[in-house]
Amino acid sequence: MQTELKVEGMTCGHCTGAVEGALAKEAGVKKAKANLDSGLVTIDYNESEISLDKIKETIEDQGYDVK
Amino acid sequence: MQTELKVEGMTCGHCTGAVEGALAKEAGVKKAKANLDSGLVTIDYNESEISLDKIKETIEDQGYDVK
Repeated sequence: MQTELKVEGMTCGHCTGAVEGALAKEAGVKKAKANLDSGLVTIDYNESEISLDKIKETIEDQGYDVK
Repeated sequence: MQTELKVEGMTCGHCTGAVEGALAKEAGVKKAKANLDSGLVTIDYNESEISLDKIKETIEDQGYDVK
């Protein structure tokens, strides 16, 4: 399954890297790509292994807001 | 010796951490503290071990501009 989330607060490449890295560590996340300009994070995941809520929580734990 | 440099481009805590971390790794730098709000980086260093030019270069190598 693929989803795209709007994330606020990413200001630099460290931020996109932190979001991508945190998501990549989660079981069930196959691919995560954050776009600094748009604030969009695209996530490929296996919904039998991880919920969308858990994905959002993972991003928020890095200090960003998911809209 | 202590100096304070104005650095442009630091947008988040990852950025201040990257600047502080890179400086801390340099021989001769005793202490480095970056302020996100002001963009000021305060560096305590031993001028017999590291030059101000090298300090500036270290910051620029992280992707920021020293004014």
